Amino acid sequence: MGTSLTQVLKDIVPLDEAAMQAARERQDILTKPHGSLGRLEELSIKIAGIMGTPVPKLENKAIITMAGDHGVVAEGTSLYPQEVTPQMVYNFLNGGAAINVLGKHVGARVIVVDMGVAAGLPEHPDMVCKMMGLGTENMAKGPAMTREQATGCVQMGIDVVEDEIAKGLDIVGTGDMGIGNTTASSAVCAVITGESVENVTGRGTGLDDEGVAHKVRVIQKALEVNKPDPKDAIDVLAKVGGFEIGGIAGVILGAAAHRVPVMIDGFISGAGALIAAGLCSQAKDYMIAAHTSVEIGHRAILKHLGVTSYLDLNMRLGEGTGAALGIFLAEASTSILAGMATFGEAGVTEAE
Amino acid sequence: MGTSLTQVLKDIVPLDEAAMQAARERQDILTKPHGSLGRLEELSIKIAGIMGTPVPKLENKAIITMAGDHGVVAEGTSLYPQEVTPQMVYNFLNGGAAINVLGKHVGARVIVVDMGVAAGLPEHPDMVCKMMGLGTENMAKGPAMTREQATGCVQMGIDVVEDEIAKGLDIVGTGDMGIGNTTASSAVCAVITGESVENVTGRGTGLDDEGVAHKVRVIQKALEVNKPDPKDAIDVLAKVGGFEIGGIAGVILGAAAHRVPVMIDGFISGAGALIAAGLCSQAKDYMIAAHTSVEIGHRAILKHLGVTSYLDLNMRLGEGTGAALGIFLAEASTSILAGMATFGEAGVTEAE
Repeated sequence: MGTSLTQVLKDIVPLDEAAMQAARERQDILTKPHGSLGRLEELSIKIAGIMGTPVPKLENKAIITMAGDHGVVAEGTSLYPQEVTPQMVYNFLNGGAAINVLGKHVGARVIVVDMGVAAGLPEHPDMVCKMMGLGTENMAKGPAMTREQATGCVQMGIDVVEDEIAKGLDIVGTGDMGIGNTTASSAVCAVITGESVENVTGRGTGLDDEGVAHKVRVIQKALEVNKPDPKDAIDVLAKVGGFEIGGIAGVILGAAAHRVPVMIDGFISGAGALIAAGLCSQAKDYMIAAHTSVEIGHRAILKHLGVTSYLDLNMRLGEGTGAALGIFLAEASTSILAGMATFGEAGVTEAE
Repeated sequence: MGTSLTQVLKDIVPLDEAAMQAARERQDILTKPHGSLGRLEELSIKIAGIMGTPVPKLENKAIITMAGDHGVVAEGTSLYPQEVTPQMVYNFLNGGAAINVLGKHVGARVIVVDMGVAAGLPEHPDMVCKMMGLGTENMAKGPAMTREQATGCVQMGIDVVEDEIAKGLDIVGTGDMGIGNTTASSAVCAVITGESVENVTGRGTGLDDEGVAHKVRVIQKALEVNKPDPKDAIDVLAKVGGFEIGGIAGVILGAAAHRVPVMIDGFISGAGALIAAGLCSQAKDYMIAAHTSVEIGHRAILKHLGVTSYLDLNMRLGEGTGAALGIFLAEASTSILAGMATFGEAGVTEAE
C-alpha cells in the first residue's frame, strides 16, 4: 500500500508562489507581445506552481482510466447494457478505444484499472486490479457501497498514482469507464454543488427526453433514500458514488500530494474531483480542467471547483479523452516556457 | 512558377460528399456512443471531404509563416518598431520563436517566407524569398501596393504552397509576421465584412485605448483615401492589404486547389482568408478555423467565412501559433477515424 489517505491529505500544500512568479517573469521576456499566448501562458505558470519549478518539463505522461459498474443500471438509466463495461475494458487493453488513440497521439501511457467491474475480470498483464466489488449496489434502494469501500477506493486511487509516480510521472490525466456512471456523477454533483437534480442530469450515452426524466426520478429517489451529507465527501461517495469515481478522487489527491499536475477529464472525472475537493479543498489548485463536457452537470462542477476549462469541443465520451487533449495543451505551454528565446537572446527590440 | 491564379481558381471544386458520408458512417460504428467525440468527429469528416478519401491520414504537416512590412506604421499604429519584423524573421530561422516551439510540438515543419520585409533580408538557406517590395506603401496616403503587386503576392503564395505539396503535404497551417499588420487586417476586414472600423480594430501587440482610437482614425483615413471595392478582393488587397496577407490568400487557394486542408491561424490569416474567399467562395470549404483570436475583428471574419473555430485560448500572437494547435486537433480527429476499433471488431454491444 502507498501513502495513507490521512497522510496524503496532510501532504497537499499551497502552490509554489516563487516558482510561479519566476515563470511569469520568464513569459514576459520571451519573444512575443506580453500575454499574447493567453491561456497557454497562464497554464505554464500554474504548472510551475504545482511542480515547484520555474521551468517545468512534462516528459512522463499518463492517463489513468478507471472502470467500475453501477447497480443503479437495474433502474434502466442507461442506453447500453452493463456488459459493455467489461467489453470496453478489453477494448482498452487491445488498444482499440478512443483513449488508446488519443493517449498515443499525445505520448501518454494509458493505465487501465478495474475498480469494480461487475463481470469479475480475469487478471491481465496490462490491467491494474483494484477491484472493490462486483459493481456497486443500486443506490435507488440503499447506499451504493459501504463507508469502508468508499475510503478503500480513494486509497486504491492513491496507490495507483503512486505506482505510476514511482515509474516516472510529470502529469497525469484522469479517465473513466462504467455503464451508469453519469447517473452516479449527477447524484454526486447535485449533493455537493447544491444544484437541483434536473439541472445536473444529462443524456449520458444518448438518452431521449423521457429517458432523462426517468434518470432524474431515479437520482431523486436515491437522494431521498440515502440522504448523503454534502459536507462529508466519503458519505456522498459511499451513498451515491461509484468505485471508479472514488478511485479518480484518489488519483487526484495522490498526484496533488506529490506535486504532479492533474488533468481532469469530463463529467465523471469532475465528480471524482468534487469528492477530492471535499476531502481537501487545497487539492483544487492542482486540478486543470481539460474541457467542458456536453453533460449539463459539468458546468456546475467546474464552477464549484473554481476552474475554467481549456477546451469546448462538444465531447462527452469520458475514458480520459478530454484529458489527453488537455495534456497536449499543458505540454505546449511548458514547451513554450522552456523553449522560446528571450528578447535579449534573440536580439529583438522590446515594446516602447 | 506554379499553377496560375486563374487556373487555381478553376481547380477549386466542392468537397467530396461520398468520402464525407463514408467517414460519417465509420465514425458511427467506432466503439463510442454516437457523436460523443463531438467536434473532433465533425473535423475528421470535413477533412475526409477535403482530401477526397474516407480515412484521411495527416502525415506531412507544415506551417507557412509569411513576413511583410507595412508603410502605415509611419502613422504610429504599432507599439513595436518596424525593425522587429526582420528581427523576428531571424528568430524564426534560429528556432527561438513560439511558432518554432509549437511547430515542433505538433510535428509540423515551419516555412519562413519573406513576402516583403522592409529591411531587405539577405538570402538564407532556410528562408523562402518571395519579396514583393521593401514593405508596402502607407495606405493612409494612397494604395498599399499596385494591383500587379497584389496579384503577384497571391501568386507567390500559390507557388510556395505548391513547392511544399511537391515535398509532401497533407495539411498546411497559415501564419504571419509583420509589424503593423493588424492595422491592414482591420482595414481588409472592415471593407469585406461591412463592419465599422471601430468594431474590427483591436489592440494589436498591446495598444492602450488612445492608441486604438488613433489606429481607428488611420484606418478610416485609408479607406477614405483609397475607396477599396469590397466586391473586388484584389482591389482591397492592393489598397489596404499587405504582402503577407496576399501571400496567405495564395497559400489558401493553392492548398484548396490541391485538396489540402488549410488550418487558418488568427486575425491576419483571417484577413488573408477573406481575400481568398473573395476570389473564390468555394475555397471556404477548405478552411479550418483553428482558434478565435483576442483581436476583436476576428469574430466578424469567422462569421463572414461561415466557419466556427475550434479553440478559444485568449491568444493573439499570430505566426501560425493557433494553426499549430489546430493541426494537433486535426490529426487527433483523423487518428480517431483511422485508429479506433469498430463495435464489430471489438465485440462491443451497441446501444439499444
